[in-house]
Amino acid sequence: MYSQEQLLELLSTARPGHTLPQPFYRDAELYAFDMSAVWTRSWFLLGFEAELPAPGSHLSVSIGPNPLLVVRGRDGTIRGFHNTCRHRGAQICPEGNGVSPRIVCPYHRWTYDLDGRLVGASRMPKDLDFEAHSLIPFRIELLEGCVYGALGPDAPDFAPFRAAATSFLRPYRLAEAKLAHQSVLIEKANWKLVMENARECYHCATGHPDLKVSFPVQYPEGSRATDGSRDPAYVAAMRALELPVGPEAGAWWHIGRYALNPGARTVSLDGRTVVKPQLLDVDGQAIGGLRWATEPNSFCHAFGDYAFMFAVLPAGPQETRVLSKWLVAREAREGVDYSLEDLTAVWTRTNLQDRDLAENNQRGVNGLGYRPGPYAEVAEELVVRFNDWYRATAAAGAQQL
Amino acid sequence: MYSQEQLLELLSTARPGHTLPQPFYRDAELYAFDMSAVWTRSWFLLGFEAELPAPGSHLSVSIGPNPLLVVRGRDGTIRGFHNTCRHRGAQICPEGNGVSPRIVCPYHRWTYDLDGRLVGASRMPKDLDFEAHSLIPFRIELLEGCVYGALGPDAPDFAPFRAAATSFLRPYRLAEAKLAHQSVLIEKANWKLVMENARECYHCATGHPDLKVSFPVQYPEGSRATDGSRDPAYVAAMRALELPVGPEAGAWWHIGRYALNPGARTVSLDGRTVVKPQLLDVDGQAIGGLRWATEPNSFCHAFGDYAFMFAVLPAGPQETRVLSKWLVAREAREGVDYSLEDLTAVWTRTNLQDRDLAENNQRGVNGLGYRPGPYAEVAEELVVRFNDWYRATAAAGAQQL
Amino acid sequence: MYSQEQLLELLSTARPGHTLPQPFYRDAELYAFDMSAVWTRSWFLLGFEAELPAPGSHLSVSIGPNPLLVVRGRDGTIRGFHNTCRHRGAQICPEGNGVSPRIVCPYHRWTYDLDGRLVGASRMPKDLDFEAHSLIPFRIELLEGCVYGALGPDAPDFAPFRAAATSFLRPYRLAEAKLAHQSVLIEKANWKLVMENARECYHCATGHPDLKVSFPVQYPEGSRATDGSRDPAYVAAMRALELPVGPEAGAWWHIGRYALNPGARTVSLDGRTVVKPQLLDVDGQAIGGLRWATEPNSFCHAFGDYAFMFAVLPAGPQETRVLSKWLVAREAREGVDYSLEDLTAVWTRTNLQDRDLAENNQRGVNGLGYRPGPYAEVAEELVVRFNDWYRATAAAGAQQL
Repeated sequence: MYSQEQLLELLSTARPGHTLPQPFYRDAELYAFDMSAVWTRSWFLLGFEAELPAPGSHLSVSIGPNPLLVVRGRDGTIRGFHNTCRHRGAQICPEGNGVSPRIVCPYHRWTYDLDGRLVGASRMPKDLDFEAHSLIPFRIELLEGCVYGALGPDAPDFAPFRAAATSFLRPYRLAEAKLAHQSVLIEKANWKLVMENARECYHCATGHPDLKVSFPVQYPEGSRATDGSRDPAYVAAMRALELPVGPEAGAWWHIGRYALNPGARTVSLDGRTVVKPQLLDVDGQAIGGLRWATEPNSFCHAFGDYAFMFAVLPAGPQETRVLSKWLVAREAREGVDYSLEDLTAVWTRTNLQDRDLAENNQRGVNGLGYRPGPYAEVAEELVVRFNDWYRATAAAGAQQL
Repeated sequence: MYSQEQLLELLSTARPGHTLPQPFYRDAELYAFDMSAVWTRSWFLLGFEAELPAPGSHLSVSIGPNPLLVVRGRDGTIRGFHNTCRHRGAQICPEGNGVSPRIVCPYHRWTYDLDGRLVGASRMPKDLDFEAHSLIPFRIELLEGCVYGALGPDAPDFAPFRAAATSFLRPYRLAEAKLAHQSVLIEKANWKLVMENARECYHCATGHPDLKVSFPVQYPEGSRATDGSRDPAYVAAMRALELPVGPEAGAWWHIGRYALNPGARTVSLDGRTVVKPQLLDVDGQAIGGLRWATEPNSFCHAFGDYAFMFAVLPAGPQETRVLSKWLVAREAREGVDYSLEDLTAVWTRTNLQDRDLAENNQRGVNGLGYRPGPYAEVAEELVVRFNDWYRATAAAGAQQL
Repeated sequence: MYSQEQLLELLSTARPGHTLPQPFYRDAELYAFDMSAVWTRSWFLLGFEAELPAPGSHLSVSIGPNPLLVVRGRDGTIRGFHNTCRHRGAQICPEGNGVSPRIVCPYHRWTYDLDGRLVGASRMPKDLDFEAHSLIPFRIELLEGCVYGALGPDAPDFAPFRAAATSFLRPYRLAEAKLAHQSVLIEKANWKLVMENARECYHCATGHPDLKVSFPVQYPEGSRATDGSRDPAYVAAMRALELPVGPEAGAWWHIGRYALNPGARTVSLDGRTVVKPQLLDVDGQAIGGLRWATEPNSFCHAFGDYAFMFAVLPAGPQETRVLSKWLVAREAREGVDYSLEDLTAVWTRTNLQDRDLAENNQRGVNGLGYRPGPYAEVAEELVVRFNDWYRATAAAGAQQL
């Protein structure tokens, strides 16, 4: 393991506006550092309230080596627990979604109430201290239907993100939506390469032939794909609808609205709407997309008819899982109001294309010919921000080693 | 690599009666320590004399990274050798069973006699010192047909185990049995998690629907599944047959007899006998099961009609191979006196269920929410003993680093 | 990582004429040392000029973690570049052969001229220093159609090899040949075990039943398979044809001619010629084979009708890729003048047999029973030379850590 001094020295060689030094993308030791010191200082997106409709609904996701559980209690409150039994350490709920009246470990039936308290442990000594063996909690913040988690006390203040994002997100009523589909994709690349790829559309024109049909990849000088603020007509139209445009941003979050390509009503293979009941319907007017993104692991887009989540789950020094989710209006009926094929095609293809790009990036970064390179100030503005965030958070983590 | 001081400090944090601190189940460094300092201080079960019926019969098994060879010599003696050629280091015999008049390396035909002496090395210089290039031996102990091995001088005294176990094992005449079947199962879990799973039946009632048909998983208060001593009727019946009940135990071994479920004559899918000729026949009376187990790697059960071996072979920090063997009476004819399907079904299914439990245990143990948890004093008594043995053996190994 | 002192001490325990101490064949740290300190001090074979027929032709090969690119420029010059984009570090050209007017990164279309200069980077700031972002070159040497590369300034002087090898190679006109086939084989063994296997034919008589039909594996006392100098009739016949016999050798290279088995005209399943137009035709006379080999990674054989390359590409501590190529006369037409099946069968089978031997060697070397063993002075002469070279090069590399 690197010493604190070595880590700080390595971090000091990272130039702002440039890709990171090679070890950050490659080495097992730095992956362990990321998981123990960077991710524990962050809010990561886990999913949506829409996945937890009733008491006992739960959601199991692993962040690096850490299996986590999000549960809606009998009181309606959503709580986060480490998904590890206090008896022998088994993972309690399998990855994915479920519902059960209590949380029961499949190994020896230790049973926890929905608030994490141990309530049953057959064959243990009578004097077992039940209170001392509750599930270990972790922090949860809910934001207009989105569920964010944090593994330690050093995550940043959530309030500024909430304050800025609420008015953007509220009209979509995501807490009342439903999960239409989810998928997991394995990528043989460090999580930071997957995130850098996800933070720019400089590669979209040639890399994403499907996405670019409806999604803007040729945008005016000095502007990014997801920044509608430079387009006066779009700003005026949104103002008339009382929809904020932004962008607004903090060190670890970003939100803003943007126009789609002319004629496109959503992001789909042909730009046409793919779900009949709308999440947000303003008399059929074109509203473009809303994008919100958080470090270290997510971006989402909401359109009139659906919302899409892209969340990165590190799985090793050079392996990352990408968790994608699609939300639609609760009343939308699969096979009637939408088809999974039409709903998911464009992002599924885009994800597979991005996987190839990220894996190819990893191969090149691993070589002796790799040198940290310069980001394009505008086209890669959000990568620069990711990189700024990473260096600052890693430095804070290294200071406390 | 950990320093001796760091290892001893880490071991000192392990609380008796509790699962081990996280690194012991997870880290590559501690796996290397286990293989070099714990397994070298232990007797491990490799197989049975029944697999080595004639001079030249041999058995090849890998213990961690160490390929080992057990050979019956022309004098009938069974010897253990490292299965590595003294020329270029190739593995000599492939994993599994074989027979050959001499031990010949497939690479350059270096040839060893059955006692390990180099007897042929074509094209080598005339002055090659043959005596200095014998196969490297390791220690073997035979116990009523069971073959145990040890890789170093620090393994415990074998005599007490032999003294206690002989009278239990002798009636089954395992040395005259035959190997009916064997299998290897890969489990993505540290070997100690696989062993802890194998040392208790607390999980059997819900985890092993097939096993529990014939095997006792609901047993009286204060008693374990494989301890018949609390059942006066069973003790009396065995005494009448002059069969010891036990249990008897040392720091690294355990042996004892127990009753099966009412009506069951063996452990099978329906409790009915699966092999016609018996290993041990006492006028058709029910004798239950005999279980003997040794740290670090095995348990066996003998019933009237067959014996089953479960042996753990570490394969990596979070990977273990489980080697299973089934012995039947030598005169039993496959397809006539028994079917492999009926003979093996219950333990094969049980092994697969245990694999899922062990892999799930590994996932939970790897997380930030893992805390060493308490064992149930009675239901997990043998896990406590495994844990006691491991901590003591690891401490002894660490002292000599 | 080992300290310089530890490495030098470990190297000092390696006995000349014996296989290396266990860690050299096994450990991740020593693999990293090999790639950073041994391979960077060496000339490795990458392929042939025949694969780069026109300006823009390129060849992409990875040496360990390092993706490399060999390109023929508009001026006809062949140059080597690290195959890593100077922008975000993506691998530029996929593994294998290709042709394009410029070198374009698939990620964001950064474009390099065939001489490595950055000539296009859309959307980057106007003041981007193009000259500072050229592809990073590596050293190339061409030798009668063979392309050798080196990753650092410490590779040995190439001139003596060129001086000795030219007269042997020139008659085969390899630069005017064409690539008929290539393959990659994954072997689960350290690259040094794969090379040791490739440096001797002591194992051929029993290990390679296909090869030994035409290739000499039973040779006179005191002689190697590929040394024709001990055969006066062969020497005389070659002298009459003005073809040098050799052998000649330096610390890291070796070249020489040898007779095939009686009646064999080439190395094929039956010894009969497999390609109609010849690379080297001396009025149909038998000329045997020409073998040239270089440390750390290659051997080649040229026969009258084809040439075969075997090159080792390390892929991990215990994983190696073997890249094989077959060259034939440019005018030879597949399906008419030769069949790929007949051309490639003998070396493909031999490679697969060698893979099994190398993987088996790795398994044995990993065990506690491994001891460095003695090489046969004559039968393993070239392994001794490989071992001498490795120890000397590793010591030089360790001195400069």
